[in-house]
Amino acid sequence: MPWNFSAGPSALPAPVLERAREELLIRDKRGSCLLERSFTGAEFVATMTAAEAGLRELLAVPDEYAVLFLSGGAMAQFGLLPMNLARPGQPAAYVESGYWSGRAIEEARHFCSVSFAARHTVRDGVVHLPPPDEWRIDPDAAYCHYTANETAQGAEFHIQPDSGLVPLVADMSSNILSRRLDVSRFGVIYASAQKNLGASGLTLALVRRDLLSRSGSAVPSSLSYRIQAAESSRYSTPPVFEVALVKLVFDWLRAEGGMPAMEVRSLYKSDLLYRAIDDSAGFYRCFVAPANRSRMNVCFRLGDEALTESFVADAEAEGLFNLRGHSRVGGIRVSLYNAVPEAAVHALLQFMDHFAARHG
Amino acid sequence: MPWNFSAGPSALPAPVLERAREELLIRDKRGSCLLERSFTGAEFVATMTAAEAGLRELLAVPDEYAVLFLSGGAMAQFGLLPMNLARPGQPAAYVESGYWSGRAIEEARHFCSVSFAARHTVRDGVVHLPPPDEWRIDPDAAYCHYTANETAQGAEFHIQPDSGLVPLVADMSSNILSRRLDVSRFGVIYASAQKNLGASGLTLALVRRDLLSRSGSAVPSSLSYRIQAAESSRYSTPPVFEVALVKLVFDWLRAEGGMPAMEVRSLYKSDLLYRAIDDSAGFYRCFVAPANRSRMNVCFRLGDEALTESFVADAEAEGLFNLRGHSRVGGIRVSLYNAVPEAAVHALLQFMDHFAARHG
Repeated sequence: MPWNFSAGPSALPAPVLERAREELLIRDKRGSCLLERSFTGAEFVATMTAAEAGLRELLAVPDEYAVLFLSGGAMAQFGLLPMNLARPGQPAAYVESGYWSGRAIEEARHFCSVSFAARHTVRDGVVHLPPPDEWRIDPDAAYCHYTANETAQGAEFHIQPDSGLVPLVADMSSNILSRRLDVSRFGVIYASAQKNLGASGLTLALVRRDLLSRSGSAVPSSLSYRIQAAESSRYSTPPVFEVALVKLVFDWLRAEGGMPAMEVRSLYKSDLLYRAIDDSAGFYRCFVAPANRSRMNVCFRLGDEALTESFVADAEAEGLFNLRGHSRVGGIRVSLYNAVPEAAVHALLQFMDHFAARHG
Repeated sequence: MPWNFSAGPSALPAPVLERAREELLIRDKRGSCLLERSFTGAEFVATMTAAEAGLRELLAVPDEYAVLFLSGGAMAQFGLLPMNLARPGQPAAYVESGYWSGRAIEEARHFCSVSFAARHTVRDGVVHLPPPDEWRIDPDAAYCHYTANETAQGAEFHIQPDSGLVPLVADMSSNILSRRLDVSRFGVIYASAQKNLGASGLTLALVRRDLLSRSGSAVPSSLSYRIQAAESSRYSTPPVFEVALVKLVFDWLRAEGGMPAMEVRSLYKSDLLYRAIDDSAGFYRCFVAPANRSRMNVCFRLGDEALTESFVADAEAEGLFNLRGHSRVGGIRVSLYNAVPEAAVHALLQFMDHFAARHG
């Protein structure tokens, strides 16, 4: 059976794909399928309401948070965040922890001044994330932004930071819904859908309602947190297919046991892999500090880097796809989002074992 | 057979829906379907390239225009247009022709000063669009914007305006690909996908390349015309499902005979309806000047407005759906996008005839 370890857009649960084919693209008695109906009609409103309720249940989202379904991906939010949250002239604090936080910072600089709350370090080639209790957050900052999981390097914050009075903003594009979460610690959580939530074209945002009033008139209305919260994310036509798809993913997650189950499963899958890497006597090597290793993107290198291309090609021959590392990082990357089953990890482990035996 | 006359999201061609089910949501030998693959991989790049080629062929788009696939709907462009095209302090000219141009103007005012090139008039209850040869365009304007088809009132510009040296910008969300078009007359043409192109979550834009340099750093990068043109609309993950879907729609349009065929078909369908309305001795009444009547959204009222609700209910009983007019306008609206077949119009005409006979 082929297995898909793509970092994003990435694997969806097979039962969700099946329901999507059967429920979203078939016309009803009124001659229309989901894609062909008014977004203000009863059917779509019910779908969107159920999607919001599903997310609220899964993450126990407090009432004082708005749930927004926004068009586009998380990269659009890199600019829209300061546009929505920073008052003119107000700085924003950023934690620099790798490739994606770097991109978020680069974009934010066009819209506000940026101060660093912390930066990651590389010691003896090993990535260390800055521990949240050592962050130094400018008390005047509009917010403090961090990237909860760095998909390119495979590094993840496992401790929920406490940012004090400065609202904490987290890009959780690649690890949302993979563990329990205390939403009340955050000002904003945002995540593009194409990794752990559904398909590209949609970004979910949880926004603490007291922050909504910061959105000024210089943000296009359909991208304004304040306006979309007031309009239940239907100020303009939302991406109806992606909204319906996350609803199916939420249904699946609840049936699978919700966040406690995903937390156990993510730990189990990633632990198996990291253990195999660490036990390979240097044949495979992980360059992320053990405390910061990602459960979502297991990144490693072959001790003999000249074997990387053979590893990828031989893996494909065994039905194991999309294992090449991020282009800026190289090496191997195994993405283990919720939809990647344990059987896929077992198949990969067996392959890694055989590959090491052949070349060791 | 039920028929769907929804104004948007609206009917898709039945063969496109079928191909979408069979081609977009089924996993291949590598264990992934469209939604589960990297957007920089060969498969998706080929799909997007084919979509662009399809549009270029259908509309004979000159090389000096970039084709952009942008996230979100046309309403986001209402703000993003002045952000991308107007230099700081530069005004923009707008033609006010009804509900949607009014919304575009209201939003643009947050980002630039607006001057009116022309406004529509209502004489004896009848809507008249301002003839393009009477527009007075501020020569300093960054661009002159008009709404090629007003879906709420059912009024359409049938003459392609000439805006002289000021770049002409057209919102063609509801009539793009319904007739031949001389793209070279325009600076920018944009259209959200959920009416005549595909599904919501995607906006197509044709941008004359000399205008790309106007985009400054104050636009989020994934929403910048300049950056997305330079990155072939893959600066960030595009809405992959909607891109693949418009590709299928373009395939269908070419197989059906392209723009000449759509032009004939649109005229035929709308003429039949307008003739029936005008020949009903006032039982049905259209309040748009004959020269400005929309081929896409045929709007009319019942002579006895008290019959409107019965008309809608009785039509539904006959399998004719989504005929209620826009909430701000009332009456009846029949949307006749490319995917609405002639058979649907014949069924509606028969119903209108019977309804008039019963109540006349």
